[in-house]
Amino acid sequence: MIPFDLSLYLVTDRDLSKGRPLEYIVAEAVKGGVTMVQLREKDCSSRDFYELGVRLKKILNPQNIPLIINDRLDIALAVDADGLHIGQSDLPCEIARQFLGKNKILGLSVETIQQVEEANALDVDYIGISPVFATPTKTDTFTPFGLEGVKASCALSKHPAVAIGGINIENTAEIIAKGADGVAVVSAISSADSPMKAAASLKKLIAKK
Amino acid sequence: MIPFDLSLYLVTDRDLSKGRPLEYIVAEAVKGGVTMVQLREKDCSSRDFYELGVRLKKILNPQNIPLIINDRLDIALAVDADGLHIGQSDLPCEIARQFLGKNKILGLSVETIQQVEEANALDVDYIGISPVFATPTKTDTFTPFGLEGVKASCALSKHPAVAIGGINIENTAEIIAKGADGVAVVSAISSADSPMKAAASLKKLIAKK
Repeated sequence: MIPFDLSLYLVTDRDLSKGRPLEYIVAEAVKGGVTMVQLREKDCSSRDFYELGVRLKKILNPQNIPLIINDRLDIALAVDADGLHIGQSDLPCEIARQFLGKNKILGLSVETIQQVEEANALDVDYIGISPVFATPTKTDTFTPFGLEGVKASCALSKHPAVAIGGINIENTAEIIAKGADGVAVVSAISSADSPMKAAASLKKLIAKK
Repeated sequence: MIPFDLSLYLVTDRDLSKGRPLEYIVAEAVKGGVTMVQLREKDCSSRDFYELGVRLKKILNPQNIPLIINDRLDIALAVDADGLHIGQSDLPCEIARQFLGKNKILGLSVETIQQVEEANALDVDYIGISPVFATPTKTDTFTPFGLEGVKASCALSKHPAVAIGGINIENTAEIIAKGADGVAVVSAISSADSPMKAAASLKKLIAKK
């Protein structure tokens, strides 16, 4: 298994990048200290998704920062990414693991406390507690966990847990204090005037835990 | 390699199935004589795509009719489908073949005569000449090949060729006469009052070649 650090996890969104190329956002975020990057694309061709993955891998690999692909096992395989992140509407976990192999990182989004418990029986490497707060980024999710939900989930989970959804400079410290191994952010970095500075500011709050 | 017969190739489209379940359309089409089925889904979750694939495989496998998955290599792998059909905006052919293995069917859509020629150098098992005629089903394609384009493509291709796009009971015989190994149809079967009868009628025209 590739070692990984969930503490500051960037999830990409080209729509929230203010027209700047994803490579720029990712490269700046890396300078600011992100520890993992998830490439999430919902509306692009398989070829574009693949090529974007190849380009991000070239940026991340030399820095030893894992590149995780959202949902698409085939893109993760094709790019030889470091891992795959699946949600409850994606491929079943066992199938993802079967084709991904033991040496790749497999993450799973959980949307309820019950799913946190179910995940304890699954061969995943981390869980994503989603969403912590209401967010416009994802619309198909359950009731937000809130800070107390994060605390309960982290206590219950046998897997490392990253929190996602509405996380920013204002609430990162609280989330880490509740027991999360890290925060996953989208707009807090991608939409920032300086993705590097935004990442660095978040990083400081996490390091204080 | 699994033997396959391109002669009457159903490509699914739930939006054109008049509200009837895909399993019904496929089962009826099989009774009518389709020789291959491609599951094409553009707007559903990976889990739904996978589960649909599993259900179609149960219908097709006992009849020895190959199930081909459109675009999504991961779904083809997860379902253990008989093959994958990729377009020019999907994963590169070599990568699809690498993960699919030698024993599965790999089809490639070609949209120009130049792509027919390029496909001769690729490790694919058949090409899909697309579109023959203008069609509302796909919007992102090049100028239609027309009957003469089909003839030229079939003469040029070293791979078996199936024609797709605007094909129905009126033009099937002509397309076969131009050298195509088969016709791929969407609405001509899926939107028919009786998908079985529609398939059987097309089948007769193909058998006459």
